Amino acid sequence: MKLSPKWKAAVYSVCGLLGWLLASGNLAITFAEEPRVTVVAADPLPSWNTGPARQSVIDFVARVTQVDSPDFVPVAERIAVFDNDGTLWPENPVPFQAAYVFDELKRRAPKEPRLAEDPMVQAALAGNLAKLLEGEHHDGLMRIAALTHTGMTTDEFKSSVEAWLASARHPKFDTPYDQLTYQPMQELLRYLRSNGFKTFIVSGGGADFMRVWAERVYGIPPEQVVGSSARTKFELRDSGPVLVKTLDHLFVDDKGGKPVGIHQFIGRRPIACFGNSDGDLAMLQYTTIKNPRPSLGLIVHHTDAEREYAYDAKPKSSGKLVDALTEATQRGWTVVSMKDDWKTIFPSKN
Amino acid sequence: MKLSPKWKAAVYSVCGLLGWLLASGNLAITFAEEPRVTVVAADPLPSWNTGPARQSVIDFVARVTQVDSPDFVPVAERIAVFDNDGTLWPENPVPFQAAYVFDELKRRAPKEPRLAEDPMVQAALAGNLAKLLEGEHHDGLMRIAALTHTGMTTDEFKSSVEAWLASARHPKFDTPYDQLTYQPMQELLRYLRSNGFKTFIVSGGGADFMRVWAERVYGIPPEQVVGSSARTKFELRDSGPVLVKTLDHLFVDDKGGKPVGIHQFIGRRPIACFGNSDGDLAMLQYTTIKNPRPSLGLIVHHTDAEREYAYDAKPKSSGKLVDALTEATQRGWTVVSMKDDWKTIFPSKN
Repeated sequence: MKLSPKWKAAVYSVCGLLGWLLASGNLAITFAEEPRVTVVAADPLPSWNTGPARQSVIDFVARVTQVDSPDFVPVAERIAVFDNDGTLWPENPVPFQAAYVFDELKRRAPKEPRLAEDPMVQAALAGNLAKLLEGEHHDGLMRIAALTHTGMTTDEFKSSVEAWLASARHPKFDTPYDQLTYQPMQELLRYLRSNGFKTFIVSGGGADFMRVWAERVYGIPPEQVVGSSARTKFELRDSGPVLVKTLDHLFVDDKGGKPVGIHQFIGRRPIACFGNSDGDLAMLQYTTIKNPRPSLGLIVHHTDAEREYAYDAKPKSSGKLVDALTEATQRGWTVVSMKDDWKTIFPSKN
Repeated sequence: MKLSPKWKAAVYSVCGLLGWLLASGNLAITFAEEPRVTVVAADPLPSWNTGPARQSVIDFVARVTQVDSPDFVPVAERIAVFDNDGTLWPENPVPFQAAYVFDELKRRAPKEPRLAEDPMVQAALAGNLAKLLEGEHHDGLMRIAALTHTGMTTDEFKSSVEAWLASARHPKFDTPYDQLTYQPMQELLRYLRSNGFKTFIVSGGGADFMRVWAERVYGIPPEQVVGSSARTKFELRDSGPVLVKTLDHLFVDDKGGKPVGIHQFIGRRPIACFGNSDGDLAMLQYTTIKNPRPSLGLIVHHTDAEREYAYDAKPKSSGKLVDALTEATQRGWTVVSMKDDWKTIFPSKN
């Protein structure tokens, strides 16, 4: 076939126009193939099973981020607080910080007679966990925590935690502790951050302990880690300025202490709160009850004895979940059953 | 002129191609005009006079942000801490929070006999500032601060500060207090943030007091305000959850307390520190001495009796700058003379 010059000109100019339209984004061409490829937004929560728990999170995020919604929340106020032990990683057979403490005592006691004489150290080395957990704030545990967390500089403590993380392995999963975070919660942290949320840890665990690895492991920087803490002491040594860890003004960031810690360290009321035990009840209440902003409360319920642990209904468990679970229905908090709502628990090892 | 059909086709297709290139961003056309417009980066510090103080800041920022520099500091570690009173806004004739306290006492004393009987309240109402400033931590001032800062919920306190800011005016400048920030320091805050720094206040002032307005006035969110603080008490009332302000575990964020506060609230060593008095000496040391990262220490020296105040060399002044000024030379800290280094002190009112 031979085109007349007029037709040629028309074809050239139409092709040019098409090129412009395509490049400018004013026109898109799709090619149908078998099987037809449909591009959809990547699932932000691939480790979550479809169901009301997952949906409640997605609905909440949509609600507060949609600019023309009456429930829109400005980015600056999108504060999300996460408990750590039992919410972002396991707390069995003992909270991981307690495992650090036991390992430190084992390492140090043979060399330090005064340490070895302490009754709580002896209870710890004998594996007498019940004795350590006595009292409302687990006084024995706090005592041996203090013995292993004070008297050194903050830098020395950090090095000690790093050395432990590099060598210790979880007894059940035979994996370094910092590789045992919950994959669905990691996805949730990223999902919230990609929607303008600022994610904070608010945990009974030690702030100095968590800050060593929270940025690497969760993407949460030290200044967004609220935990139990005590005052340090500033000293200007020949080697440079140091902060020496003490027990003064111990702040236990648990139960009613959690809203207190949130106010003191964050200074804003959260709109989303994630916990797993009665220790998180107060911060769930603080986040969701009569909050002028829309809010989300979510509880991770440990129901999977096979893939993780099922323990939280036990009234004597350190991760006891009784009062908060009862209140969840009344308050409209989301309860996540790890067994049913999570496709996977831990990141895959490949 | 009449084009042959071949030429027409060529012109059409070339036009089409140009359209595509332009729309796709592969080609840009610039039009030279008289006078030729040269775009230069806007001066980030227009209220600063050219000189070593301004230059030291610009050199430092260039040094830590240049990717191929051995002194490059990752964004996450670009922590800058600012004292507030005397560094970001004035502290004369009294620190502004003290002005709030005096005004509150004046307002409340006639209605509250117990308050009116307190010797420190009487000293305050009589204008006996010397008595209030006695003791290392200005005990009288702390006492009346406590009387006006505890026993109410955090929300009630916030409302009270907002009401005061809306009505009170500075005695010398006849301007609302929150409009009296230093323009050159506002520029510095923005300049650092635009270079990836996270800016924190680390002040002896009350955290709850500063958080009411710091975000609006400085662009510094509540979670980046470290100040003096005490623990609140969580209560779940019929009206909703509240935090009641108490005096328990008072933390005075001054002198050696500043590095302590930085560690407890930020958990990272700053690389830039801005202060104006001996109360900032410890955090200047903590930031700059043997820091493995490059660091900047800067002191705002109050030398301008006409446009602001010249007071900091007086050994009894609450904003005393003696030891830190002596140490500045040895440590290589930048000293800003407000009189010489700042073109303007306050934002223009138009």
